Amino acid sequence: MKWEELSAQQCSVAQASAVLGDRWSLLLLSDFFLGVRRFEDFQQRLGLSRTTLTNRLKLLEKHDVIKRQAYQHQPTRYEYRLTAKGRDLFPVISALVTWGDKYYFKGLSPPIIRTHLSCGHDIQPILTCPECREEVDTRSMSARERPESAGLPPLERGPVSYSSK
Amino acid sequence: MKWEELSAQQCSVAQASAVLGDRWSLLLLSDFFLGVRRFEDFQQRLGLSRTTLTNRLKLLEKHDVIKRQAYQHQPTRYEYRLTAKGRDLFPVISALVTWGDKYYFKGLSPPIIRTHLSCGHDIQPILTCPECREEVDTRSMSARERPESAGLPPLERGPVSYSSK
Repeated sequence: MKWEELSAQQCSVAQASAVLGDRWSLLLLSDFFLGVRRFEDFQQRLGLSRTTLTNRLKLLEKHDVIKRQAYQHQPTRYEYRLTAKGRDLFPVISALVTWGDKYYFKGLSPPIIRTHLSCGHDIQPILTCPECREEVDTRSMSARERPESAGLPPLERGPVSYSSK
Repeated sequence: MKWEELSAQQCSVAQASAVLGDRWSLLLLSDFFLGVRRFEDFQQRLGLSRTTLTNRLKLLEKHDVIKRQAYQHQPTRYEYRLTAKGRDLFPVISALVTWGDKYYFKGLSPPIIRTHLSCGHDIQPILTCPECREEVDTRSMSARERPESAGLPPLERGPVSYSSK
């Protein structure tokens, strides 16, 4: 199966990966969440070629994750902003940063400080259950594919507990 | 700057992207969290070539995200398991699935059902503050780069509130 066929399938991860499954896109999004908005700033920070940067920004715009917006007229100049769909990627990028901090900055101060404005603490957000508010991890969660899902070929066995892995 | 230089930098996202910034790697990890362990099963489900699958599994093994383990002797046959580092990617993949569900299955039943075993509810985990337990999003969080961080070129301005974007 070609990637193009897979990404058209009914699979949330395949759909999301079409946007995020690229190293530059992840770095760009991380910079968007740090407030970077302009072509030259992205280029200076990431040091990628203008062509690559243009292509990645176009991809994110095509998927409605960012939008182009004029910030100056005569001559018109543009910057990029996250859309609502783009802002909703915050949990993904946040979880990525937390994981990177844990495994590549063990015992060191993480390079990006995140502050929860409501309570004032510097934090690394955690994943919790919206029903009982407990922190969740692989041991406390199970997952199964919906039987009628028109997604990937089904697993042969039933629901799995992550803890068995 | 070449990708290889960037990924050696002191940046959690760059480090994490070296493992995750690939569409097949994201799909493979998602399948790992659904309990898939064997080469043939990955290949059947994702339909990618043996070469690509071999390369992606090698990359994940090299980064200590998965490990190879014999499940049969004479002849020896192997399967792949998530390591502790790999299981810690659960929040990333979980957030990715939630985002994909929201934007590509709007109003439909999500194709993967996730259950919190402790309380029994089918849930989509949320991101919360470990200090005050409130749900966090871009409006309630700010981020800044640590001044002494030897990471990417610094932003010119100070801390940003996500809500201003």
